[in-house]
Amino acid sequence: MAALDELKDYVREITEISLAAALAAWDQRTHMPPGGAAARAKVAGRLERLAFERRVSDRMGELLAAAEREGAPAEVDRALIRVWKRDHTRHRAIPPALYQKFVETTTRAESVWEKAKAASDFALFRPHLAEVVDLVREIANLIGYKESPYDALVEEYEPGLTASALRPILGELRRELVAFLKELERGTHPRELPGGKFPLDAQRALCRQALGWIGYDFQAGRLDDAVHPFTIGVAPGDVRVTNRYREEDPFSSLFGALHEGGHALYGQGVDPALAWTGLAGGASFGIHESQARFWENQIGRSRPFWQFAHPHLAQHFPTLASTDPDDVWRHVNRVQASLIRVEADEVTYNLHICLRFELEVDMVEGRIAVDDLPARWNQAMEDYLGIAPPDDAHGVLQDVHWSAGMIGYFPSYTLGNLYAAQITETAEREIPRFWDKVEAGQFSPIREWLREVVHRHGQVYLPDELVRRITGDGLSAEPFLNYVRAKYGEVCRL
Amino acid sequence: MAALDELKDYVREITEISLAAALAAWDQRTHMPPGGAAARAKVAGRLERLAFERRVSDRMGELLAAAEREGAPAEVDRALIRVWKRDHTRHRAIPPALYQKFVETTTRAESVWEKAKAASDFALFRPHLAEVVDLVREIANLIGYKESPYDALVEEYEPGLTASALRPILGELRRELVAFLKELERGTHPRELPGGKFPLDAQRALCRQALGWIGYDFQAGRLDDAVHPFTIGVAPGDVRVTNRYREEDPFSSLFGALHEGGHALYGQGVDPALAWTGLAGGASFGIHESQARFWENQIGRSRPFWQFAHPHLAQHFPTLASTDPDDVWRHVNRVQASLIRVEADEVTYNLHICLRFELEVDMVEGRIAVDDLPARWNQAMEDYLGIAPPDDAHGVLQDVHWSAGMIGYFPSYTLGNLYAAQITETAEREIPRFWDKVEAGQFSPIREWLREVVHRHGQVYLPDELVRRITGDGLSAEPFLNYVRAKYGEVCRL
Repeated sequence: MAALDELKDYVREITEISLAAALAAWDQRTHMPPGGAAARAKVAGRLERLAFERRVSDRMGELLAAAEREGAPAEVDRALIRVWKRDHTRHRAIPPALYQKFVETTTRAESVWEKAKAASDFALFRPHLAEVVDLVREIANLIGYKESPYDALVEEYEPGLTASALRPILGELRRELVAFLKELERGTHPRELPGGKFPLDAQRALCRQALGWIGYDFQAGRLDDAVHPFTIGVAPGDVRVTNRYREEDPFSSLFGALHEGGHALYGQGVDPALAWTGLAGGASFGIHESQARFWENQIGRSRPFWQFAHPHLAQHFPTLASTDPDDVWRHVNRVQASLIRVEADEVTYNLHICLRFELEVDMVEGRIAVDDLPARWNQAMEDYLGIAPPDDAHGVLQDVHWSAGMIGYFPSYTLGNLYAAQITETAEREIPRFWDKVEAGQFSPIREWLREVVHRHGQVYLPDELVRRITGDGLSAEPFLNYVRAKYGEVCRL
Repeated sequence: MAALDELKDYVREITEISLAAALAAWDQRTHMPPGGAAARAKVAGRLERLAFERRVSDRMGELLAAAEREGAPAEVDRALIRVWKRDHTRHRAIPPALYQKFVETTTRAESVWEKAKAASDFALFRPHLAEVVDLVREIANLIGYKESPYDALVEEYEPGLTASALRPILGELRRELVAFLKELERGTHPRELPGGKFPLDAQRALCRQALGWIGYDFQAGRLDDAVHPFTIGVAPGDVRVTNRYREEDPFSSLFGALHEGGHALYGQGVDPALAWTGLAGGASFGIHESQARFWENQIGRSRPFWQFAHPHLAQHFPTLASTDPDDVWRHVNRVQASLIRVEADEVTYNLHICLRFELEVDMVEGRIAVDDLPARWNQAMEDYLGIAPPDDAHGVLQDVHWSAGMIGYFPSYTLGNLYAAQITETAEREIPRFWDKVEAGQFSPIREWLREVVHRHGQVYLPDELVRRITGDGLSAEPFLNYVRAKYGEVCRL
């Protein structure tokens, strides 16, 4: 085991440096005063570089080869070799000069994108996006793929997934959701709840309470304010949540807390033996998202949940005491085709993702030019959601991802929704009286079950393996479609 | 300048890593949840090691030698070479195995010291302290010195200072303070102020306001709670202050804020050109302490300051509105011989330090054995302060420093007091109507003067050089003695 032990020491060093970088990132987005920004970029860049140099080093290549030759009988050790080899191989494939060009181009593209979005000026962004797409295609070719250059990209976020595996699933999802959305239009839409101001401190208190309900461990984490909510593990035993609050809406912060709390339970639930191995993250972006969506939507937007949570809501916000649990449940499940992805409801959200997936595959495979994006975007919005963006700021320019070179990332969001529905379907079978427990606020058996089947494994299994172990089945849109049909049929009294 | 530029790049890397470590230390003492502690020690240790390896590396030695051969015409570049060469030489002198033994021994000694202090059991601590003293003497011999092994140790904190330079100054200080304390006993001692509870949030608000008065820049720092107050620069442009609050006493937090604020103004005032050079710290521990003592004592405990600050105090704490500014001024300047250094007043504080200095020099020079410490300690307390510790917990066991191997550190506290008085004497001459400004709350000309003469220079000058540049004179006890005689004569109506 000499080679494996040496590899583990090296991996530990990289992980320690990466956690220092995670702390710097957390601080930057929560507590850092403005005067620290310029220097923080240098410090974060240095830590990033120290870790990156080791990940792609000759020494890493040698240690991996030696450990493979030696053979690792334990499953976790084989996973460690698999994860670090994939990382090493992918990043070694990109020559440093090209990677540097990619960083510079995306940094510039992102800042131009901000201006272009503000001015709704696609022409301004177009040449930068074209450059990014060219670079991403070059990188995909260097990394290599069997069928589509898109596969080399999506692999970064969802190991093992391919465009050809995704296409039929997202195609089915799109067709069914478009049809279901038309059905829903004939339903009864929920009434508005009393408005007004919902004090931020009461919102913070409710969110803290909700994190407690689902079993977030405040001894191994903390909750802070941030402009864009995120969850980050800064150490084994220290997984931090952030949230934002808007005075006119007490629900967005509550669902934000449940969403981030879901991510955090994953981090807090990983087997401590995986600390410092690089396997303490999630199996994939999609699986991680599923844990957030599980608590946010499957539980938090369920009818039983609001039977339990309503009195607490009313206690924090007395103006809502006149509502009943079903009023709130219907309110938080309103469906409305809209232009902006991040504001979309559960039914329409995935249509925004299908659209992006189709466009980015076509871009990467060279079937459409960047010039054609706005027209294609607007046509798809019309076709899928029946609405047309009034301008590109509300259309093709709305997301940061492409400017940042994150092509292949969007499917993770929908994968999270689909996995969450698959996992819930299994939980309903395996956890006795599942929904009674939710209605009684007894979340700990549910969390413990998730810990057992998902969290503790960290990155030991590939996402497909993990989902099959849990549900007996691979990725599928069926459970999600059944779920939205049943719930929204009821919400809208079809 | 090729060699110098290479050295600067290397120094920049070390500084970036060290600032990541500073952030980890700040977070550990302010926001980290308990679950993060074990992993944080690993991350901090790794960063420490990455920086240390570079500081003592062959490459550092070569870069320093090449830069010296090349010659550096600029004063700051010569300072950079001086500071890093001193660091390199001192740390290279200690073989890694010995250093490891030192870290292990002091870690063990510190944890035994905690128990020994709690049980007031010197016998328990004795063998561990003896081990530490032996190691420290061995290290001093390896580092080398001209006159006394103590010189090799104090150099770490106050570059250029020696036992033989300190001995007459601290000797004079001791004799004069012992005599003055006897005089004060014949004076009138101030009456107690109204007691009660002083809400923590009002204390926090007053401290924040006080930091604002002296010009602490909240855009380039922040104020947080901590168990032991400290100030730390986590980046150029990000110098953070912490403070603690006790409900029964509104003054200890206020003076804590002024003290830490003084340290922070130093950090915030360093010339931005010194960022990443390793010269952005203070000229020495003593000079840094002088900036804290300046705002805490010279300004914050002055009569004019309370003419200005009293209405603000009364606003935050209505029960104090019945007092007048002089009542408060007298209250915060009570003198009383006492057993515990950290609770001592301005007059008696330095006697605690003189005692420790004499004992640690004698230990390091081999003139007294660890066994003899308690008796020597108690005799000196009797001689200098006229009181005898009832047990060793209130005597020789009270401080952590020796257990941690920090022999040579104690003088920094008194140096801070002496330098602060020397600097104040100069400021009174150079800043027109100095005390009128204090009474009017016009602190910015004072801060700007300090920035000009002290802060901006960072570590470019040795402490002795810096003090001579500012005051025209080297380290001296005279200004401090004049200051305490004048102020406390008035406070106690001699």
